[in-house]
Amino acid sequence: MRPLLALDWGTSSLRGALIDTNGAVLQERSLARGILSVAPGQFPAVFDECFGDWMTPQSLCLISGMAGSQQGWREAAYCPCPAGFDDIAAQLQWVEAGRIAIVPGLSIDTGGAPDVMRGEETQVFGALQLLGLSDAKLVLPGTHSKWVRVEQRRITDFSSWMTGEFYALLRQHSLLARSLPEGEPAPDADAFDQGVVHALRSQSLLNTAFSMRTLALFKRLPAEALPSYLSGLVIGEELKSQALQPGESVVVMANDSLSARYQQALAHLGVSVQRVGSNATWQGLHAIAQTLSRA
Amino acid sequence: MRPLLALDWGTSSLRGALIDTNGAVLQERSLARGILSVAPGQFPAVFDECFGDWMTPQSLCLISGMAGSQQGWREAAYCPCPAGFDDIAAQLQWVEAGRIAIVPGLSIDTGGAPDVMRGEETQVFGALQLLGLSDAKLVLPGTHSKWVRVEQRRITDFSSWMTGEFYALLRQHSLLARSLPEGEPAPDADAFDQGVVHALRSQSLLNTAFSMRTLALFKRLPAEALPSYLSGLVIGEELKSQALQPGESVVVMANDSLSARYQQALAHLGVSVQRVGSNATWQGLHAIAQTLSRA
Repeated sequence: MRPLLALDWGTSSLRGALIDTNGAVLQERSLARGILSVAPGQFPAVFDECFGDWMTPQSLCLISGMAGSQQGWREAAYCPCPAGFDDIAAQLQWVEAGRIAIVPGLSIDTGGAPDVMRGEETQVFGALQLLGLSDAKLVLPGTHSKWVRVEQRRITDFSSWMTGEFYALLRQHSLLARSLPEGEPAPDADAFDQGVVHALRSQSLLNTAFSMRTLALFKRLPAEALPSYLSGLVIGEELKSQALQPGESVVVMANDSLSARYQQALAHLGVSVQRVGSNATWQGLHAIAQTLSRA
Repeated sequence: MRPLLALDWGTSSLRGALIDTNGAVLQERSLARGILSVAPGQFPAVFDECFGDWMTPQSLCLISGMAGSQQGWREAAYCPCPAGFDDIAAQLQWVEAGRIAIVPGLSIDTGGAPDVMRGEETQVFGALQLLGLSDAKLVLPGTHSKWVRVEQRRITDFSSWMTGEFYALLRQHSLLARSLPEGEPAPDADAFDQGVVHALRSQSLLNTAFSMRTLALFKRLPAEALPSYLSGLVIGEELKSQALQPGESVVVMANDSLSARYQQALAHLGVSVQRVGSNATWQGLHAIAQTLSRA
Protein backbone atom coordinates (compact mmCIF):
# COMPACT_ATOMS: atom_id res chain seq x y z
CA MET A 1 0.00 0.00 0.00
CA ARG A 2 1.10 3.57 -0.77
CA PRO A 3 1.70 6.37 1.73
CA LEU A 4 -1.56 8.23 2.31
CA LEU A 5 -2.26 11.91 2.67
CA ALA A 6 -5.71 12.07 4.28
CA LEU A 7 -7.55 15.40 4.14
CA ASP A 8 -10.73 16.60 5.79
CA TRP A 9 -11.50 19.77 3.82
CA GLY A 10 -14.49 21.48 5.32
CA THR A 11 -16.29 24.78 5.02
CA SER A 12 -14.09 26.69 7.44
CA SER A 13 -11.07 24.47 8.09
CA LEU A 14 -8.63 22.16 6.35
CA ARG A 15 -7.16 19.26 8.32
CA GLY A 16 -4.64 16.75 7.07
CA ALA A 17 -2.85 13.64 8.27
CA LEU A 18 0.16 11.84 6.88
CA ILE A 19 -0.46 8.12 7.26
CA ASP A 20 2.13 5.42 6.73
CA THR A 21 1.60 2.15 4.90
CA ASN A 22 0.56 0.46 8.15
CA GLY A 23 -2.15 3.02 8.88
CA ALA A 24 -0.25 4.89 11.58
CA VAL A 25 -0.72 8.66 11.72
CA LEU A 26 2.77 10.19 11.40
CA GLN A 27 1.83 13.88 11.41
CA GLU A 28 -1.27 16.04 11.53
CA ARG A 29 -1.82 19.60 10.37
CA SER A 30 -4.80 21.94 10.76
CA LEU A 31 -5.24 25.16 8.78
CA ALA A 32 -7.88 27.88 8.53
CA ARG A 33 -8.20 27.23 4.79
CA GLY A 34 -11.76 25.97 4.54
CA ILE A 35 -13.36 26.02 1.10
CA LEU A 36 -14.97 29.39 1.77
CA SER A 37 -11.47 30.91 1.92
CA VAL A 38 -10.41 29.49 -1.45
CA ALA A 39 -11.11 31.41 -4.67
CA PRO A 40 -12.49 29.41 -7.62
CA GLY A 41 -9.65 27.74 -9.51
CA GLN A 42 -7.21 28.12 -6.61
CA PHE A 43 -7.75 24.71 -5.01
CA PRO A 44 -4.65 23.06 -6.60
CA ALA A 45 -2.48 25.99 -5.52
CA VAL A 46 -3.81 25.97 -1.95
CA PHE A 47 -3.36 22.21 -1.83
CA ASP A 48 0.28 22.49 -2.95
CA GLU A 49 0.93 25.32 -0.54
CA CYS A 50 -0.55 23.51 2.46
CA PHE A 51 0.36 19.88 1.80
CA GLY A 52 2.73 19.80 -1.20
CA ASP A 53 5.64 18.90 1.09
CA TRP A 54 3.86 15.71 2.19
CA MET A 55 3.17 14.45 -1.36
CA THR A 56 5.77 12.08 -2.82
CA PRO A 57 5.61 10.45 -6.29
CA GLN A 58 4.18 7.36 -4.56
CA SER A 59 1.61 9.19 -2.45
CA LEU A 60 -2.15 8.83 -2.63
CA CYS A 61 -4.30 11.71 -1.39
CA LEU A 62 -7.92 11.16 -0.37
CA ILE A 63 -10.12 14.12 0.55
CA SER A 64 -13.44 14.06 2.37
CA GLY A 65 -15.76 16.94 3.18
CA MET A 66 -17.01 20.04 1.45
CA ALA A 67 -14.15 20.01 -1.07
CA GLY A 68 -16.55 17.86 -3.12
CA SER A 69 -19.38 20.39 -3.03
CA GLN A 70 -20.45 22.82 -5.76
CA GLN A 71 -18.28 25.50 -4.11
CA GLY A 72 -15.34 23.11 -3.61
CA TRP A 73 -12.42 21.79 -5.64
CA ARG A 74 -14.56 19.62 -7.86
CA GLU A 75 -18.15 18.50 -7.37
CA ALA A 76 -18.45 14.86 -6.39
CA ALA A 77 -22.04 13.73 -6.98
CA TYR A 78 -23.83 12.49 -3.88
CA CYS A 79 -24.05 8.73 -3.46
CA PRO A 80 -27.72 7.88 -2.78
CA CYS A 81 -28.61 5.95 0.39
CA PRO A 82 -28.63 3.18 1.34
CA ALA A 83 -24.89 3.23 0.69
CA GLY A 84 -22.00 1.14 1.96
CA PHE A 85 -18.34 1.73 2.21
CA ASP A 86 -17.78 0.04 -1.15
CA ASP A 87 -20.23 2.39 -2.85
CA ILE A 88 -18.37 5.54 -1.86
CA ALA A 89 -14.98 3.91 -2.57
CA ALA A 90 -16.22 3.06 -6.08
CA GLN A 91 -17.45 6.61 -6.78
CA LEU A 92 -14.36 8.65 -5.92
CA GLN A 93 -14.03 11.86 -7.91
CA TRP A 94 -10.42 11.95 -9.17
CA VAL A 95 -8.98 15.44 -9.54
CA GLU A 96 -5.59 14.02 -10.50
CA ALA A 97 -5.77 10.53 -11.94
CA GLY A 98 -4.50 7.88 -9.55
CA ARG A 99 -3.12 10.46 -7.11
CA ILE A 100 -5.76 12.80 -5.64
CA ALA A 101 -9.44 11.88 -5.16
CA ILE A 102 -12.46 13.36 -3.42
CA VAL A 103 -14.83 11.10 -1.50
CA PRO A 104 -18.49 11.66 -2.47
CA GLY A 105 -21.05 12.64 0.15
CA LEU A 106 -24.38 10.90 0.63
CA SER A 107 -27.94 11.95 -0.14
CA ILE A 108 -31.25 10.55 0.99
CA ASP A 109 -34.83 11.31 0.05
CA THR A 110 -37.48 9.77 2.25
CA GLY A 111 -40.34 11.71 0.72
CA GLY A 112 -40.46 14.85 2.87
CA ALA A 113 -37.37 16.70 1.82
CA PRO A 114 -33.94 15.50 0.71
CA ASP A 115 -31.01 15.45 3.11
CA VAL A 116 -27.27 15.42 2.47
CA MET A 117 -23.92 14.93 4.17
CA ARG A 118 -20.33 15.45 3.07
CA GLY A 119 -17.49 14.18 5.22
CA GLU A 120 -19.62 12.55 7.90
CA GLU A 121 -19.97 9.37 5.79
CA THR A 122 -16.19 8.92 6.02
CA GLN A 123 -16.24 9.47 9.78
CA VAL A 124 -19.06 6.95 10.15
CA PHE A 125 -17.30 4.24 8.15
CA GLY A 126 -14.11 4.95 10.09
CA ALA A 127 -15.96 4.63 13.38
CA LEU A 128 -17.51 1.33 12.37
CA GLN A 129 -13.99 0.02 11.74
CA LEU A 130 -12.62 1.41 15.00
CA LEU A 131 -15.49 -0.09 17.01
CA GLY A 132 -15.90 -3.31 14.99
CA LEU A 133 -19.62 -2.62 14.47
CA SER A 134 -21.91 -3.59 11.57
CA ASP A 135 -25.12 -2.12 12.96
CA ALA A 136 -25.30 1.13 14.87
CA LYS A 137 -27.09 4.37 15.53
CA LEU A 138 -24.60 7.24 15.47
CA VAL A 139 -24.72 10.94 16.13
CA LEU A 140 -22.17 13.48 14.92
CA PRO A 141 -23.05 16.55 16.98
CA GLY A 142 -22.17 20.00 15.70
CA THR A 143 -23.41 23.04 13.85
CA HIS A 144 -25.57 20.70 11.79
CA SER A 145 -25.71 17.44 13.75
CA LYS A 146 -26.16 14.23 11.79
CA TRP A 147 -28.04 11.20 13.09
CA VAL A 148 -27.07 8.09 11.14
CA ARG A 149 -28.53 4.59 11.06
CA VAL A 150 -26.19 1.79 9.92
CA GLU A 151 -27.49 -1.67 9.12
CA GLN A 152 -25.17 -4.44 7.95
CA ARG A 153 -22.41 -1.92 7.33
CA ARG A 154 -24.58 0.25 5.09
CA ILE A 155 -25.89 3.72 5.91
CA THR A 156 -29.63 3.18 5.54
CA ASP A 157 -30.94 6.44 6.97
CA PHE A 158 -29.70 9.79 8.20
CA SER A 159 -30.95 13.26 9.03
CA SER A 160 -29.57 16.72 9.79
CA TRP A 161 -30.37 18.79 12.88
CA MET A 162 -29.32 22.44 13.07
CA THR A 163 -28.70 22.18 16.80
CA GLY A 164 -25.37 23.97 17.04
CA GLU A 165 -26.51 26.69 14.69
CA PHE A 166 -29.77 27.32 16.57
CA TYR A 167 -27.73 27.57 19.78
CA ALA A 168 -25.48 30.17 18.18
CA LEU A 169 -28.40 32.12 16.68
CA LEU A 170 -30.25 32.29 19.99
CA ARG A 171 -27.05 32.94 21.93
CA GLN A 172 -25.80 35.76 19.72
CA HIS A 173 -28.61 37.30 17.71
CA SER A 174 -31.93 36.75 19.49
CA LEU A 175 -33.83 39.25 21.62
CA LEU A 176 -33.08 36.88 24.51
CA ALA A 177 -29.34 37.31 23.94
CA ARG A 178 -29.58 40.62 25.81
CA SER A 179 -30.29 38.68 29.03
CA LEU A 180 -27.23 36.48 28.54
CA PRO A 181 -23.72 37.10 29.85
CA GLU A 182 -21.19 38.40 27.34
CA GLY A 183 -18.37 35.89 27.74
CA GLU A 184 -18.61 32.12 28.04
CA PRO A 185 -19.33 31.32 31.71
CA ALA A 186 -18.24 27.95 33.09
CA PRO A 187 -20.60 25.12 32.07
CA ASP A 188 -23.39 24.55 34.59
CA ALA A 189 -24.33 20.87 34.56
CA ASP A 190 -27.52 21.38 36.57
CA ALA A 191 -28.79 24.14 34.29
CA PHE A 192 -27.94 21.96 31.27
CA ASP A 193 -29.97 19.11 32.79
CA GLN A 194 -32.86 21.45 33.48
CA GLY A 195 -32.86 22.49 29.81
CA VAL A 196 -32.73 18.89 28.60
CA VAL A 197 -35.62 17.84 30.84
CA HIS A 198 -37.76 20.83 29.82
CA ALA A 199 -37.14 20.12 26.13
CA LEU A 200 -37.88 16.39 26.47
CA ARG A 201 -41.27 17.16 28.08
CA SER A 202 -42.24 19.95 25.68
CA GLN A 203 -43.46 20.36 22.15
CA SER A 204 -41.07 22.67 20.38
CA LEU A 205 -38.03 24.88 20.76
CA LEU A 206 -40.21 27.77 19.51
CA ASN A 207 -41.85 27.61 22.92
CA THR A 208 -39.12 26.27 25.23
CA ALA A 209 -36.59 28.91 24.14
CA PHE A 210 -38.92 31.56 25.60
CA SER A 211 -38.36 30.01 29.04
CA MET A 212 -34.83 31.48 29.00
CA ARG A 213 -36.51 34.84 29.27
CA THR A 214 -39.02 33.94 31.96
CA LEU A 215 -36.58 31.97 34.13
CA ALA A 216 -34.31 35.02 34.11
CA LEU A 217 -37.25 37.37 34.69
CA PHE A 218 -38.39 35.45 37.77
CA LYS A 219 -34.77 34.96 38.89
CA ARG A 220 -35.07 31.19 38.85
CA LEU A 221 -31.79 30.90 36.93
CA PRO A 222 -28.85 33.29 37.17
CA ALA A 223 -27.68 34.83 33.89
CA GLU A 224 -24.45 32.80 34.03
CA ALA A 225 -26.46 29.56 33.93
CA LEU A 226 -28.55 30.50 30.88
CA PRO A 227 -26.06 29.44 28.15
CA SER A 228 -25.85 25.93 29.66
CA TYR A 229 -29.64 25.86 30.01
CA LEU A 230 -29.98 26.84 26.34
CA SER A 231 -27.50 24.15 25.33
CA GLY A 232 -29.71 21.65 27.20
CA LEU A 233 -32.82 22.96 25.44
CA VAL A 234 -31.43 22.53 21.91
CA ILE A 235 -29.77 19.17 22.56
CA GLY A 236 -32.89 17.92 24.35
CA GLU A 237 -34.99 19.02 21.37
CA GLU A 238 -32.68 17.08 19.04
CA LEU A 239 -32.82 13.94 21.19
CA LYS A 240 -36.57 13.85 21.73
CA SER A 241 -37.08 13.51 17.97
CA GLN A 242 -34.90 10.40 17.54
CA ALA A 243 -37.34 7.74 18.80
CA LEU A 244 -34.70 6.44 21.19
CA GLN A 245 -35.55 3.52 23.48
CA PRO A 246 -34.23 2.94 27.02
CA GLY A 247 -31.37 0.45 26.92
CA GLU A 248 -30.33 1.49 23.43
CA SER A 249 -26.72 2.48 22.69
CA VAL A 250 -25.63 5.39 20.52
CA VAL A 251 -22.18 6.10 19.08
CA VAL A 252 -21.30 9.76 19.74
CA MET A 253 -18.59 11.26 17.54
CA ALA A 254 -17.39 14.61 18.85
CA ASN A 255 -14.76 16.27 20.97
CA ASP A 256 -14.66 15.41 24.66
CA SER A 257 -16.75 18.26 26.01
CA LEU A 258 -19.53 17.92 23.45
CA SER A 259 -19.53 14.12 23.79
CA ALA A 260 -19.86 14.50 27.54
CA ARG A 261 -22.86 16.79 27.11
CA TYR A 262 -24.60 14.34 24.77
CA GLN A 263 -23.84 11.50 27.15
CA GLN A 264 -25.36 13.47 30.02
CA ALA A 265 -28.47 14.31 27.95
CA LEU A 266 -28.89 10.76 26.59
CA ALA A 267 -28.79 9.41 30.15
CA HIS A 268 -32.20 11.06 30.69
CA LEU A 269 -33.57 8.68 28.05
CA GLY A 270 -31.78 5.63 29.48
CA VAL A 271 -29.53 5.52 26.42
CA SER A 272 -25.87 4.56 26.80
CA VAL A 273 -23.02 5.96 24.76
CA GLN A 274 -19.93 4.76 22.93
CA ARG A 275 -17.57 7.63 22.18
CA VAL A 276 -15.36 7.99 19.12
CA GLY A 277 -13.00 10.92 18.67
CA SER A 278 -11.74 12.79 15.66
CA ASN A 279 -9.45 10.02 14.38
CA ALA A 280 -12.42 8.34 12.68
CA THR A 281 -11.91 10.37 9.49
CA TRP A 282 -8.33 9.16 9.14
CA GLN A 283 -9.47 5.60 9.77
CA GLY A 284 -12.18 5.94 7.12
CA LEU A 285 -9.86 7.39 4.48
CA HIS A 286 -7.23 4.76 5.28
CA ALA A 287 -9.83 2.03 4.75
CA ILE A 288 -10.69 3.49 1.32
CA ALA A 289 -6.98 3.53 0.46
CA GLN A 290 -6.75 -0.13 1.42
CA THR A 291 -9.69 -0.93 -0.84
CA LEU A 292 -7.99 0.86 -3.74
CA SER A 293 -4.73 -0.99 -3.20
CA ARG A 294 -6.59 -4.31 -3.28
CA ALA A 295 -8.47 -3.40 -6.46
CA MET B 1 -67.78 58.27 31.50
CA ARG B 2 -64.63 60.35 30.99
CA PRO B 3 -62.76 60.85 27.73
CA LEU B 4 -60.16 58.08 27.36
CA LEU B 5 -56.61 58.20 26.10
CA ALA B 6 -55.78 54.57 25.30
CA LEU B 7 -52.10 53.69 24.87
CA ASP B 8 -50.39 50.54 23.66
CA TRP B 9 -46.79 51.15 24.76
CA GLY B 10 -44.62 48.33 23.53
CA THR B 11 -40.96 47.50 23.22
CA SER B 12 -40.37 49.32 19.96
CA SER B 13 -43.48 51.42 19.33
CA LEU B 14 -45.98 53.63 21.10
CA ARG B 15 -49.55 53.78 19.77
CA GLY B 16 -52.36 55.86 21.12
CA ALA B 17 -56.04 56.47 20.51
CA LEU B 18 -58.32 59.23 21.68
CA ILE B 19 -61.68 57.68 22.54
CA ASP B 20 -64.85 59.58 23.25
CA THR B 21 -67.33 58.84 26.00
CA ASN B 22 -69.28 56.56 23.66
CA GLY B 23 -66.25 54.42 22.83
CA ALA B 24 -65.68 55.87 19.37
CA VAL B 25 -62.06 56.28 18.27
CA LEU B 26 -61.60 59.98 17.40
CA GLN B 27 -57.91 59.97 16.52
CA GLU B 28 -54.98 57.55 16.44
CA ARG B 29 -51.26 58.23 16.63
CA SER B 30 -48.29 55.88 16.24
CA LEU B 31 -44.73 56.79 17.24
CA ALA B 32 -41.35 55.06 17.25
CA ARG B 33 -41.04 55.69 20.99
CA GLY B 34 -41.10 52.14 22.37
CA ILE B 35 -39.84 51.66 25.91
CA LEU B 36 -36.36 50.76 24.65
CA SER B 37 -36.04 54.32 23.33
CA VAL B 38 -36.94 55.93 26.67
CA ALA B 39 -34.24 56.63 29.27
CA PRO B 40 -35.05 55.72 32.89
CA GLY B 41 -37.05 58.51 34.53
CA GLN B 42 -38.07 60.04 31.19
CA PHE B 43 -41.41 58.30 30.79
CA PRO B 44 -43.53 61.22 32.10
CA ALA B 45 -41.70 63.64 29.77
CA VAL B 46 -42.09 61.37 26.74
CA PHE B 47 -45.75 60.87 27.60
CA ASP B 48 -46.34 64.63 27.80
CA GLU B 49 -44.42 65.21 24.58
CA CYS B 50 -46.31 62.56 22.61
CA PHE B 51 -49.81 62.76 24.07
CA GLY B 52 -49.96 65.76 26.39
CA ASP B 53 -52.16 67.63 23.89
CA TRP B 54 -54.81 64.90 24.15
CA MET B 55 -55.03 64.99 27.97
CA THR B 56 -57.69 67.27 29.47
CA PRO B 57 -58.39 67.72 33.19
CA GLN B 58 -61.24 65.18 32.78
CA SER B 59 -59.20 62.61 30.84
CA LEU B 60 -58.39 59.10 31.93
CA CYS B 61 -55.32 57.43 30.40
CA LEU B 62 -54.96 53.62 30.38
CA ILE B 63 -51.74 52.03 29.13
CA SER B 64 -51.19 48.40 28.17
CA GLY B 65 -47.98 46.69 27.06
CA MET B 66 -44.35 46.74 28.08
CA ALA B 67 -44.71 50.14 29.81
CA GLY B 68 -45.54 47.99 32.85
CA SER B 69 -42.35 45.92 32.67
CA GLN B 70 -39.20 46.29 34.75
CA GLN B 71 -37.73 48.45 31.99
CA GLY B 72 -40.94 50.48 31.56
CA TRP B 73 -42.59 53.44 33.20
CA ARG B 74 -43.47 51.60 36.37
CA GLU B 75 -43.56 47.87 37.00
CA ALA B 76 -47.07 46.45 37.20
CA ALA B 77 -46.91 43.02 38.84
CA TYR B 78 -48.19 40.19 36.66
CA CYS B 79 -51.69 38.97 37.41
CA PRO B 80 -51.53 35.17 37.81
CA CYS B 81 -53.75 32.99 35.58
CA PRO B 82 -56.52 32.06 35.49
CA ALA B 83 -57.46 35.71 35.29
CA GLY B 84 -60.52 37.54 34.08
CA PHE B 85 -61.13 41.01 32.88
CA ASP B 86 -62.16 42.09 36.40
CA ASP B 87 -58.86 40.86 37.84
CA ILE B 88 -56.73 43.06 35.61
CA ALA B 89 -59.10 46.00 36.00
CA ALA B 90 -58.75 45.65 39.80
CA GLN B 91 -54.95 45.54 39.71
CA LEU B 92 -54.15 48.65 37.67
CA GLN B 93 -50.85 50.28 38.52
CA TRP B 94 -51.58 54.00 38.91
CA VAL B 95 -48.70 56.27 37.94
CA GLU B 96 -50.84 59.35 38.53
CA ALA B 97 -53.72 58.76 40.91
CA GLY B 98 -57.06 58.63 39.16
CA ARG B 99 -55.61 59.84 35.86
CA ILE B 100 -52.95 57.53 34.37
CA ALA B 101 -52.79 53.77 34.97
CA ILE B 102 -50.88 50.81 33.57
CA VAL B 103 -52.68 47.54 32.92
CA PRO B 104 -50.86 44.54 34.45
CA GLY B 105 -49.74 41.65 32.28
CA LEU B 106 -50.47 38.00 33.03
CA SER B 107 -48.26 35.18 34.23
CA ILE B 108 -48.80 31.45 34.28
CA ASP B 109 -46.81 28.57 35.70
CA THR B 110 -47.93 25.12 34.66
CA GLY B 111 -44.93 23.35 36.15
CA GLY B 112 -42.48 23.35 33.27
CA ALA B 113 -41.45 26.97 33.06
CA PRO B 114 -43.34 30.19 33.69
CA ASP B 115 -44.79 32.22 30.83
CA VAL B 116 -45.80 35.86 30.64
CA MET B 117 -47.62 38.38 28.48
CA ARG B 118 -47.99 42.15 28.59
CA GLY B 119 -50.47 43.87 26.33
CA GLU B 120 -51.93 40.74 24.75
CA GLU B 121 -54.33 40.28 27.70
CA THR B 122 -55.93 43.62 26.81
CA GLN B 123 -56.21 42.62 23.16
CA VAL B 124 -57.79 39.31 24.14
CA PHE B 125 -60.40 40.87 26.40
CA GLY B 126 -61.11 43.45 23.70
CA ALA B 127 -61.55 40.70 21.10
CA LEU B 128 -63.94 38.78 23.34
CA GLN B 129 -66.08 41.92 23.55
CA LEU B 130 -65.92 42.59 19.81
CA LEU B 131 -66.89 39.01 18.99
CA GLY B 132 -69.28 38.45 21.87
CA LEU B 133 -67.45 35.31 22.96
CA SER B 134 -67.05 33.78 26.44
CA ASP B 135 -65.00 30.75 25.40
CA ALA B 136 -62.35 30.78 22.71
CA LYS B 137 -58.95 29.71 21.57
CA LEU B 138 -57.02 32.71 20.27
CA VAL B 139 -53.67 33.28 18.61
CA LEU B 140 -51.81 36.60 18.47
CA PRO B 141 -49.14 35.90 15.85
CA GLY B 142 -45.93 37.88 15.87
CA THR B 143 -42.34 37.98 17.00
CA HIS B 144 -43.42 36.01 20.05
CA SER B 145 -46.83 34.56 19.20
CA LYS B 146 -49.25 33.95 22.03
CA TRP B 147 -51.78 31.12 22.10
CA VAL B 148 -54.52 31.84 24.59
CA ARG B 149 -57.33 29.70 25.99
CA VAL B 150 -60.38 31.52 27.34
CA GLU B 151 -63.05 29.74 29.34
CA GLN B 152 -66.07 31.56 30.77
CA ARG B 153 -64.43 34.92 30.01
CA ARG B 154 -61.26 34.04 31.96
CA ILE B 155 -57.83 33.40 30.48
CA THR B 156 -57.12 29.91 31.80
CA ASP B 157 -54.00 29.04 29.80
CA PHE B 158 -51.53 30.64 27.43
CA SER B 159 -48.10 30.05 25.92
CA SER B 160 -45.47 31.93 23.93
CA TRP B 161 -43.97 30.80 20.62
CA MET B 162 -40.93 32.57 19.17
CA THR B 163 -42.18 32.03 15.63
CA GLY B 164 -41.56 35.46 14.19
CA GLU B 165 -38.19 35.73 15.85
CA PHE B 166 -37.02 32.32 14.60
CA TYR B 167 -38.08 33.35 11.10
CA ALA B 168 -36.00 36.52 11.37
CA LEU B 169 -32.99 34.69 12.85
CA LEU B 170 -32.99 32.07 10.10
CA ARG B 171 -33.77 34.64 7.41
CA GLN B 172 -31.05 37.10 8.40
CA HIS B 173 -28.34 35.42 10.45
CA SER B 174 -28.21 31.69 9.64
CA LEU B 175 -25.79 29.91 7.35
CA LEU B 176 -28.83 29.24 5.16
CA ALA B 177 -29.43 32.97 4.77
CA ARG B 178 -26.70 32.99 2.12
CA SER B 179 -28.99 30.94 -0.15
CA LEU B 180 -31.83 33.43 0.27
CA PRO B 181 -32.59 36.46 -1.88
CA GLU B 182 -31.59 39.82 -0.43
CA GLY B 183 -34.86 41.74 -0.70
CA GLU B 184 -38.36 40.55 0.13
CA PRO B 185 -39.68 38.65 -2.90
CA ALA B 186 -43.44 38.48 -3.47
CA PRO B 187 -45.14 35.91 -1.21
CA ASP B 188 -45.39 32.47 -2.81
CA ALA B 189 -48.51 30.73 -1.53
CA ASP B 190 -47.50 27.30 -2.86
CA ALA B 191 -44.07 27.42 -1.24
CA PHE B 192 -45.70 28.57 2.00
CA ASP B 193 -48.06 25.58 1.84
CA GLN B 194 -45.16 23.24 1.15
CA GLY B 195 -43.41 24.53 4.28
CA VAL B 196 -46.53 24.16 6.41
CA VAL B 197 -47.12 20.59 5.25
CA HIS B 198 -43.50 19.59 5.79
CA ALA B 199 -43.53 21.04 9.32
CA LEU B 200 -46.84 19.39 10.22
CA ARG B 201 -45.45 15.98 9.22
CA SER B 202 -42.06 16.41 10.86
CA GLN B 203 -40.55 16.37 14.33
CA SER B 204 -38.75 19.64 14.79
CA LEU B 205 -37.69 22.88 13.16
CA LEU B 206 -34.08 21.89 13.98
CA ASN B 207 -34.48 19.35 11.19
CA THR B 208 -37.03 20.91 8.83
CA ALA B 209 -35.10 24.20 8.55
CA PHE B 210 -32.25 22.24 6.93
CA SER B 211 -34.59 21.41 4.04
CA MET B 212 -34.29 25.05 2.91
CA ARG B 213 -30.71 24.19 2.05
CA THR B 214 -31.38 20.90 0.33
CA LEU B 215 -34.41 22.07 -1.65
CA ALA B 216 -32.25 24.92 -2.99
CA LEU B 217 -29.30 22.55 -3.58
CA PHE B 218 -31.41 20.17 -5.66
CA LYS B 219 -33.19 23.10 -7.34
CA ARG B 220 -36.61 21.95 -6.16
CA LEU B 221 -37.43 25.47 -5.00
CA PRO B 222 -36.15 28.71 -6.53
CA ALA B 223 -34.38 31.09 -4.15
CA GLU B 224 -37.27 33.58 -4.40
CA ALA B 225 -39.66 30.96 -2.96
CA LEU B 226 -37.50 30.12 0.07
CA PRO B 227 -38.65 32.96 2.38
CA SER B 228 -42.30 31.90 1.93
CA TYR B 229 -41.30 28.26 2.45
CA LEU B 230 -39.48 29.23 5.66
CA SER B 231 -42.53 31.18 6.84
CA GLY B 232 -44.57 28.02 6.29
CA LEU B 233 -42.05 25.93 8.23
CA VAL B 234 -42.10 28.12 11.34
CA ILE B 235 -45.88 28.70 11.34
CA GLY B 236 -46.49 24.99 10.70
CA GLU B 237 -44.18 24.14 13.61
CA GLU B 238 -46.18 26.49 15.84
CA LEU B 239 -49.52 25.02 14.76
CA LYS B 240 -48.59 21.36 15.09
CA SER B 241 -47.95 21.87 18.81
CA GLN B 242 -51.41 23.29 19.63
CA ALA B 243 -53.41 20.04 19.75
CA LEU B 244 -55.92 21.51 17.31
CA GLN B 245 -58.87 19.40 16.19
CA PRO B 246 -60.56 19.46 12.78
CA GLY B 247 -63.73 21.55 12.97
CA GLU B 248 -62.34 23.76 15.71
CA SER B 249 -62.33 27.54 15.33
CA VAL B 250 -59.49 29.87 16.31
CA VAL B 251 -59.57 33.66 16.70
CA VAL B 252 -56.57 35.14 14.85
CA MET B 253 -55.52 38.64 15.89
CA ALA B 254 -53.05 40.17 13.46
CA ASN B 255 -52.75 42.42 10.46
CA ASP B 256 -54.36 41.25 7.23
CA SER B 257 -51.38 39.58 5.59
CA LEU B 258 -50.30 37.65 8.68
CA SER B 259 -53.91 36.67 9.44
CA ALA B 260 -54.26 35.38 5.90
CA ARG B 261 -51.15 33.25 6.29
CA TYR B 262 -52.39 31.74 9.56
CA GLN B 263 -55.76 31.09 7.98
CA GLN B 264 -54.10 29.32 5.06
CA ALA B 265 -51.95 27.22 7.42
CA LEU B 266 -54.82 26.38 9.79
CA ALA B 267 -56.88 25.14 6.84
CA HIS B 268 -54.43 22.21 6.59
CA LEU B 269 -55.66 21.12 10.02
CA GLY B 270 -59.34 21.66 9.20
CA VAL B 271 -59.46 24.61 11.58
CA SER B 272 -61.53 27.67 10.72
CA VAL B 273 -60.65 31.21 11.61
CA GLN B 274 -62.30 34.33 12.99
CA ARG B 275 -60.20 37.42 12.39
CA VAL B 276 -59.86 40.44 14.67
CA GLY B 277 -57.75 43.43 13.76
CA SER B 278 -55.75 45.90 15.77
CA ASN B 279 -58.73 47.74 17.26
CA ALA B 280 -59.04 45.08 19.96
CA THR B 281 -56.62 46.94 22.25
CA TRP B 282 -58.76 50.09 22.15
CA GLN B 283 -61.85 47.99 22.83
CA GLY B 284 -60.13 46.30 25.79
CA LEU B 285 -58.93 49.57 27.33
CA HIS B 286 -62.33 51.16 26.80
CA ALA B 287 -63.96 48.26 28.62
CA ILE B 288 -61.62 48.78 31.58
CA ALA B 289 -62.51 52.49 31.58
CA GLN B 290 -66.19 51.55 31.68
CA THR B 291 -65.55 49.27 34.65
CA LEU B 292 -63.78 52.11 36.47
CA SER B 293 -66.60 54.56 35.79
CA ARG B 294 -69.10 52.05 37.23
CA ALA B 295 -66.98 51.42 40.34
